[in-house]
Amino acid sequence: MKKKNLFNLCIFGVGYVGLPLSLEFSKKYKVIAYDKDEKRISSLRLGKDSNGDLEPRERRYLKKNKNLVFTSKINDIKNCNVYIITVPTPISKKKEPDLRNIIDATKKVATFIKKKDLVIYESTVFPGTTENICVPIIEKKKKFKLNKDFIVGYSPERLSPGDNNHGLKKVIKVTSGSNLRASNIVNKLYKSIIRKGTFKTSSIRIAEAAKVIENTQRDINIAFINELVYIFDKLNLNTHEVLKAASTKWNFVNFQPGLVGGHCIAVDPYYLNYISEKKKYFPKLIKPARLINDKMSLFVSQKIKKELKKRLLFTSSANILILGFAYKENSSDTRNSPIYKIYKLLKSKNRNIDIIDPLVNSEQVLKEFKLKINKNIKRKYDCIILAVPHKKIINNFSKYSNLLKSDKSFIFDIKYSLERSNQNRIFL
Amino acid sequence: MKKKNLFNLCIFGVGYVGLPLSLEFSKKYKVIAYDKDEKRISSLRLGKDSNGDLEPRERRYLKKNKNLVFTSKINDIKNCNVYIITVPTPISKKKEPDLRNIIDATKKVATFIKKKDLVIYESTVFPGTTENICVPIIEKKKKFKLNKDFIVGYSPERLSPGDNNHGLKKVIKVTSGSNLRASNIVNKLYKSIIRKGTFKTSSIRIAEAAKVIENTQRDINIAFINELVYIFDKLNLNTHEVLKAASTKWNFVNFQPGLVGGHCIAVDPYYLNYISEKKKYFPKLIKPARLINDKMSLFVSQKIKKELKKRLLFTSSANILILGFAYKENSSDTRNSPIYKIYKLLKSKNRNIDIIDPLVNSEQVLKEFKLKINKNIKRKYDCIILAVPHKKIINNFSKYSNLLKSDKSFIFDIKYSLERSNQNRIFL
Repeated sequence: MKKKNLFNLCIFGVGYVGLPLSLEFSKKYKVIAYDKDEKRISSLRLGKDSNGDLEPRERRYLKKNKNLVFTSKINDIKNCNVYIITVPTPISKKKEPDLRNIIDATKKVATFIKKKDLVIYESTVFPGTTENICVPIIEKKKKFKLNKDFIVGYSPERLSPGDNNHGLKKVIKVTSGSNLRASNIVNKLYKSIIRKGTFKTSSIRIAEAAKVIENTQRDINIAFINELVYIFDKLNLNTHEVLKAASTKWNFVNFQPGLVGGHCIAVDPYYLNYISEKKKYFPKLIKPARLINDKMSLFVSQKIKKELKKRLLFTSSANILILGFAYKENSSDTRNSPIYKIYKLLKSKNRNIDIIDPLVNSEQVLKEFKLKINKNIKRKYDCIILAVPHKKIINNFSKYSNLLKSDKSFIFDIKYSLERSNQNRIFL
Repeated sequence: MKKKNLFNLCIFGVGYVGLPLSLEFSKKYKVIAYDKDEKRISSLRLGKDSNGDLEPRERRYLKKNKNLVFTSKINDIKNCNVYIITVPTPISKKKEPDLRNIIDATKKVATFIKKKDLVIYESTVFPGTTENICVPIIEKKKKFKLNKDFIVGYSPERLSPGDNNHGLKKVIKVTSGSNLRASNIVNKLYKSIIRKGTFKTSSIRIAEAAKVIENTQRDINIAFINELVYIFDKLNLNTHEVLKAASTKWNFVNFQPGLVGGHCIAVDPYYLNYISEKKKYFPKLIKPARLINDKMSLFVSQKIKKELKKRLLFTSSANILILGFAYKENSSDTRNSPIYKIYKLLKSKNRNIDIIDPLVNSEQVLKEFKLKINKNIKRKYDCIILAVPHKKIINNFSKYSNLLKSDKSFIFDIKYSLERSNQNRIFL
């Protein structure tokens, strides 16, 4: 494993993290990209990037790439010597870390690992997970000893789905290893593909901690702005105007109010909270911030209901169009979408609600949420909720604003995405 | 009041806000700078900028400036037509807004105000203060009607004591007025002296809100980092290393752990909290953030005590040197200094504690805190606390590190200001 060309990589989990990683590594090394999801694998084999995880010009590397093998057969990883685990780390119903994927992946790797092999984790975890939870699984299974028989590393993913400006090669990658040799190898490996460079930490736990605080900081900052929305709503002040004025100060940090969903910002803080509570420090900001952001769906739906009541005699028969269902703009990802909560809250009053999202996979939404994503719309609406401002929606907005039923109809612009000049526009 | 040269300005309160403002305006208009503090006024008359509120090259305008009159006689403001109020707005012992200064200033101005005059507030307040609290005082006293007989404006100060890079002229200034004419006049007035420009808001309340959220955002961000210190202390992780790794991400916001004192960041959040609670929204982040930051003095003193115990047999006789007593670096301001709390907490164990601060006014500290600021030090120390990293202290640090008593002695570097290579250095 000393020479670069001796790396035989296994990318374990081919989602929005594993796919670009597999592709980039395949430009330099042999890569086996494994995922248990057979559908995903067969689609990738056909060269289809159905979730839009790749930059457009990278897609050509999917096909006719001898270095890249997509597989759903675990036996195909048997000749690898570096295993990079990129499986999701969600939370349980109790809002605690759900490490089943990462444990399962480690167990599978443990059956194939050979002496001198390297296992790298990219999933977001709490500090200590790699060394205290994952390593013992391998040590026990193979009677191996860390740093004697095998080495491990941790290099957290920093991808932001739907954000092409911050793709894999364009963002500094934090690297770490179980000993000096491991951290040097891990760092060299990533340095060979990340144009922007790498940052080596002194320990795996430092790297784990660095990752988990990034999204927690974001969650808290959005929560502060959402808290301002709640306060300024009581004071009858326009939050966006206040933010615009404040952001003329050199050190004001520009966050916008809004819904927080998905599998990162709405999840990672619980990992930090969990390990902190385990160690008997009970965070004073992390949990309240989560609650504030989670409450935003309720707040938005109440605002919409109030607005409908102001304008219509019978609100239960109002036609509502929700524009966007992904958890964030320019992404097809619907995991933990906060729009679903808004839908449910509005639907409880039995209104006629249509949903449009040009990016999401309708079949998948039907299967997971029992919800129909509309393709073509023929009716007119009392309220259009601009929930997720995908470029595909915004660039074509007149098409949608023409669907307003009457002069009492309105657009609820959750993320303040439309021009001020747009009439009938309501916002937080 | 239409022509610029018809402005006769009164700056009411000549502290770190009023002084640079008086000076800058005096380059264009006649200025009466009023403060009830006779000592301050006589010192300014002598051309002394004892608190270092001015950029060095601005100091020459203090003397031989026919346009600028410093006075502590309230009658001297009688010929003014624009009154700019820059008095402090602190909090009470109950941590609620203490508006006595601003109310008192308004009452005084009200005795002199004439028809068509303009009153501008620069102090930090909660939204609604100018129009609901100050304006009625003038209206009642003079039987004047706002916008008919007089106009008001609000333009929040954004000065950061000790930070010469963000002086008055270098930072965009938010302006607002009680009607269109007022907001235009206020904006023009400030635009004539602020090189960086102005930002006009649609109402006074928007400008008041913008100001109060700026420092609240800062307080919450520092509180998050301090919460990380508490968490990582339990996990035995070096917070600074974690922050350094996280800050290689493009959108990580670089805040440092530390003590929060002074009259802005530690005070303004209570203003926002107060008005919010009055309107029956009970903030979930603002108060916990304040408590986290306030607790930091206790945490730091406990860390120091632990470190002393580790190293010495008898800690109560340890010699301790505190470097810095101002509430922030490169400032002489000691208001609400968090270092005083650390001093008291350490002093309770009866140790020999000296304090050095080359910037603060020793007489004032003696008077207000009953504390002696040492000039020359002759003894050696078991512990040197680098509490406030004034440039004057850092640039000359070997002078202080030479005062360490033995190889068991240490420097507690609260703000992580020293080079890593510095031996015997302990930090959060």
